[in-house]
Amino acid sequence: MRGKCVVLLSGGLDSSTTLFYAKNNGYDCHALMFDYGQRHKRELSSAVFIANAAKVPYKIIKISLPWKGSSLLDKNIRLPSKRSMKVMSKEIPSTYVPGRNTIFISFAVSYAEAIGADSIFIGANAIDFSGYPDCRPDYYKAFNKLIKLGTKKKNIKIITPLINMLKSDIIRLGKRLGVPLEKTWSCYRGGAEPCGVCDSCRIREKGFSEVKRNK
Amino acid sequence: MRGKCVVLLSGGLDSSTTLFYAKNNGYDCHALMFDYGQRHKRELSSAVFIANAAKVPYKIIKISLPWKGSSLLDKNIRLPSKRSMKVMSKEIPSTYVPGRNTIFISFAVSYAEAIGADSIFIGANAIDFSGYPDCRPDYYKAFNKLIKLGTKKKNIKIITPLINMLKSDIIRLGKRLGVPLEKTWSCYRGGAEPCGVCDSCRIREKGFSEVKRNK
Repeated sequence: MRGKCVVLLSGGLDSSTTLFYAKNNGYDCHALMFDYGQRHKRELSSAVFIANAAKVPYKIIKISLPWKGSSLLDKNIRLPSKRSMKVMSKEIPSTYVPGRNTIFISFAVSYAEAIGADSIFIGANAIDFSGYPDCRPDYYKAFNKLIKLGTKKKNIKIITPLINMLKSDIIRLGKRLGVPLEKTWSCYRGGAEPCGVCDSCRIREKGFSEVKRNK
Repeated sequence: MRGKCVVLLSGGLDSSTTLFYAKNNGYDCHALMFDYGQRHKRELSSAVFIANAAKVPYKIIKISLPWKGSSLLDKNIRLPSKRSMKVMSKEIPSTYVPGRNTIFISFAVSYAEAIGADSIFIGANAIDFSGYPDCRPDYYKAFNKLIKLGTKKKNIKIITPLINMLKSDIIRLGKRLGVPLEKTWSCYRGGAEPCGVCDSCRIREKGFSEVKRNK
């Protein structure tokens, strides 16, 4: 056993694979989810399904942000649609929620400290991603420094095992680890089926088609 | 007008003085408060009083931490009492809430980004303080770096005007700025009167008595 860890779990492909990866590496995993006023609750129910599939305990934090500024929170702002991969890698999209990852990770730090966990696992990815500033290695390096300075425990580390992986490699890893990938949810919209045109759907689709073509 | 800023307001001496300081320096202030399951709500009602006295708008974020680990959240853990000033400066007390300032500041970052504010004011103090790791200059320096890397706006800065001041100097500054100091609440306990023995009461008392003796 490698000790306790906190895993941020959104119910998407990346965080689900990260959870199984941490578990497979012998960590005693504690999943952390957020109900933060997303456009839909589909994501959250996928996260609960995945935590149960991995047989790990989870906690859901309810956050109500009394400000908007993102199409993920505000149905009046249009979701990005049919953006090219090149544009995605350069432009921050309307789905960016101000400071979201910083808020999520700060709760994970608090949780880790409260239960005596040494690690926080996050499925951030800086390769096949949507242009968010808080998905890059430098950001996590800076956060680790902040944790060292700002906590009693000092030795909690953020681990981002997928950060430099292609989406297709993440899918391969997920399959190998037995992640029920078909139960993960990536689409920014809710509904019965993924929309297929939002950034998240398109990156996911690209990954699966690359795996199919054995790229 | 110096532009918009977010001010973290707890209702204590330091954050109240910080709010009046920012206002006096020409900032368009937006106060941010937290209802996070403190032992008592006295602090929060002081914060509302102070925001109204300063005539600034405020928002209250409700957070429910489903873990404990601090005497500020858990009535079964004893509050520190009658600790010497020397001990206070060296030992992290039971009132330390895991990752609390990191959580509060991450909400402030989100708020600042959502309303287009360039600055976040915090009444942190590293001189007459209770030994918290997240009150030191290095911590805020690291947080500023994190903000630069993790936000769309990039140029939001945390400002800690009181960080190197003695409590007596903060009280003098507060008086000069017209802060209704008698309405601020520092005690870790609630009730009609401050307890006089917790760290926070003792630091406050020391400050006022130094001002009286003109030290």
